[in-house]
Amino acid sequence: MSALWKQYQEQHQERFLNEMLDLLRIPSVSAKSEHKEDMIRCAEAVKKSLLAAGCDRADVMPTEGYPVVYGEKIIDPKAPTVLVYGHYDVQPAEPLELWHSGPFDPVIKDGKVYARGSADDKGQFYMHVKALEILCQTQTLRTNIKFLIEGEEEVGSPNLGPFVVRHKELLHADVILISDSAMLSMDTPSLDTGVRGLSYIEVEVTGPNRDLHSGIYGGAVANPITILSKMIASCHDENNHITIPGFYDDVVTASSEERALINKAPYSEKEYSDDLGVGALWGEKGFSTYERTGIRPTLEVNGIWGGYTGEGAKTVLPSKAFAKISARLVPNQSSEKITQKLLDYFTQIAPASVQVKASLHHGGEPYMTPIDSKGYQAAARAVESTFGKAPIPVRGGGSIPICSILEKELGIKIVFMGFGLDSDNLHSPNEKYNIENYFKGIETIPYFHHYFAELS
Amino acid sequence: MSALWKQYQEQHQERFLNEMLDLLRIPSVSAKSEHKEDMIRCAEAVKKSLLAAGCDRADVMPTEGYPVVYGEKIIDPKAPTVLVYGHYDVQPAEPLELWHSGPFDPVIKDGKVYARGSADDKGQFYMHVKALEILCQTQTLRTNIKFLIEGEEEVGSPNLGPFVVRHKELLHADVILISDSAMLSMDTPSLDTGVRGLSYIEVEVTGPNRDLHSGIYGGAVANPITILSKMIASCHDENNHITIPGFYDDVVTASSEERALINKAPYSEKEYSDDLGVGALWGEKGFSTYERTGIRPTLEVNGIWGGYTGEGAKTVLPSKAFAKISARLVPNQSSEKITQKLLDYFTQIAPASVQVKASLHHGGEPYMTPIDSKGYQAAARAVESTFGKAPIPVRGGGSIPICSILEKELGIKIVFMGFGLDSDNLHSPNEKYNIENYFKGIETIPYFHHYFAELS
Repeated sequence: MSALWKQYQEQHQERFLNEMLDLLRIPSVSAKSEHKEDMIRCAEAVKKSLLAAGCDRADVMPTEGYPVVYGEKIIDPKAPTVLVYGHYDVQPAEPLELWHSGPFDPVIKDGKVYARGSADDKGQFYMHVKALEILCQTQTLRTNIKFLIEGEEEVGSPNLGPFVVRHKELLHADVILISDSAMLSMDTPSLDTGVRGLSYIEVEVTGPNRDLHSGIYGGAVANPITILSKMIASCHDENNHITIPGFYDDVVTASSEERALINKAPYSEKEYSDDLGVGALWGEKGFSTYERTGIRPTLEVNGIWGGYTGEGAKTVLPSKAFAKISARLVPNQSSEKITQKLLDYFTQIAPASVQVKASLHHGGEPYMTPIDSKGYQAAARAVESTFGKAPIPVRGGGSIPICSILEKELGIKIVFMGFGLDSDNLHSPNEKYNIENYFKGIETIPYFHHYFAELS
Repeated sequence: MSALWKQYQEQHQERFLNEMLDLLRIPSVSAKSEHKEDMIRCAEAVKKSLLAAGCDRADVMPTEGYPVVYGEKIIDPKAPTVLVYGHYDVQPAEPLELWHSGPFDPVIKDGKVYARGSADDKGQFYMHVKALEILCQTQTLRTNIKFLIEGEEEVGSPNLGPFVVRHKELLHADVILISDSAMLSMDTPSLDTGVRGLSYIEVEVTGPNRDLHSGIYGGAVANPITILSKMIASCHDENNHITIPGFYDDVVTASSEERALINKAPYSEKEYSDDLGVGALWGEKGFSTYERTGIRPTLEVNGIWGGYTGEGAKTVLPSKAFAKISARLVPNQSSEKITQKLLDYFTQIAPASVQVKASLHHGGEPYMTPIDSKGYQAAARAVESTFGKAPIPVRGGGSIPICSILEKELGIKIVFMGFGLDSDNLHSPNEKYNIENYFKGIETIPYFHHYFAELS
């Protein structure tokens, strides 16, 4: 059976790659309204690919925002059903000047596909489309497969919750399978056991009602950049603990067993720092790097701007300064509660000399999955079959805001089986996805369906 | 004589205004290289206007940067000579979306000309061109007049010093007259007795060597925005004293007499705050508003940027963050020394987890002028003649970097006779110049020449 899969994949390898590249050429940036038509075009392309791969039906289904692409291949209503979740939208490509090639003009170099969305998540969800094709063409499919490919993951999935509620029957399944994360390395395969939650806000600080001459008014009027800087600076203490009142209140501390396991994962501080080009790491005192990015909540400024940012010099005391700020949350923290704490913090610490508007961009709850479920076991065995060793369970640092809603509404567990790498430059210039990982994923996924059917 | 001047001005009022508007239509932004051709076009227009007004000669003279426009009307080599300094370059117009009309498309509303450069400095130096015309046409000129109109004031006059050194003979004069500042109000005329110095730097903070996913790396790597914010926040203590080591070392404290005089100027905290739309003022503890903007050095962030600043949300931990930062300096502070202190501060306080590049944009020394000079006395009498009351001497908050060099190289004092208002939105959107002030300036300047000749 595995020989059949492998043979089919090898025969169609070139096409499998080219189809993924075609998808990457569509600039489906959900955050930017100028890409509205590209988004629709991308959804249609996904639908077409699902039908071509063997789905009985596939539809572009409306939401209040960008549409969801739904597809299904039902072999037998009584067979176990796997719901594959993915997203066809991508992060904005900016800053464009740092890309070595066009973000939507995929280039293959050293065995890697460089393009926005290559790893996050077009290249990864497309592995499932191609795995379906293999299973159909080799007549080895033993599960029903449903696809839920949304277009708003990168903006917090604001409309997927209501969609799932409206279509519970349609989406009924036994497990949710997501490839939208990374493994430690090809030598150390791993499976994520959870994602962090997210609270993403924007802060606008207004000082004077107009930009002022910094010589005439400087020193007498609060500068919104200075005030915003002071507010941001106050968010972490000297040990890099987050100082926002109540921020850690609901954090469930990881067990010493879990911490021991995390710290057993292969890690070299030198390699990690060298890869990032930093002279020293930075983080919460008392925790290791993988603990900081896995079991601990964090707060990052994602963007800041205000005043004159062009060429040369301008002696202005600006009217406004802005920041985009987000927190990653761990189990038992509530995105809604933390968002409120963030908003309150920034509005309450503002001095009387400025006005502060703080508002929510989006959020999502943290999510953890058990490692003794059939789904996780099927994934672990699938990875072991193709990588030759059992995967390590690790907590992922990223967020997939819809996870907790999917579990709650559909009543089933999620399995994260990601084939990316941390070094894939997700959300950054020169995002890439190793071609080897792409094909390894396509090779592994049929095993998942096979084992999941066997365990069910 | 004054009747003659007035009559001529009234006859040519409309043209005097239109000529100024024509000059404002040229976007001569020295900071932005895309305006290179506009700069040359503006210099040529100034030259033409000088010849038309009565200069014997006028030339666009090269420098290493943008050219200087020189013009002269010599009535008698033995007559006292007034050197008028001004600048034809303007500040960048950004942020464009805050302008009510095009920055280079002057609009007249409620007796005010709205355009970039209307008050700073095209509208002001052009008063001198029109005053020359009046004096020539009414045959009442008793001084020689030279014009030195440069094109790089808004970028720190990097090439004017060498130009002055090369052309000392040509620029030889008895006094330098500058209209590039404001008076308290039309009811409370004032003359600036000095300008503050300037040290303008740019700081670039680099964390990781590429933009990172804030979920995968957040909490483990220093965020350059957070670090830059902490560095900026550390520049002022809780009393808004500047904390940069040695910053106040060379400050000459103003005498209690001068402080008393400053605090006698008409001032209402409520009006000042209301005009700016702020709930509270902000500044160095122990000093009044006019002291803060006059006799005290200050530090302002003029711009900040880093990470994602577009529409929507992007969960990025950026590689870089930047700030433009400038200090205003008071007598006896050295721009060079303070610049070095600023550069050292930002590079030395940086933690090992980031790299900091700090570099100079430009600087200029503070400058004070005596109030018992012939030039100052002539200006005071001129203002009294047309405003009906003697002007109050005040220290200006702005900077004209070339002042100290002009005095040093030419060996003569500077007189500041500005006709703008603090509310002119200098360096800000919707810069304006009151038409009344423009014509009042043109009316006052001939008196200056008259009295200066009389006192010489």
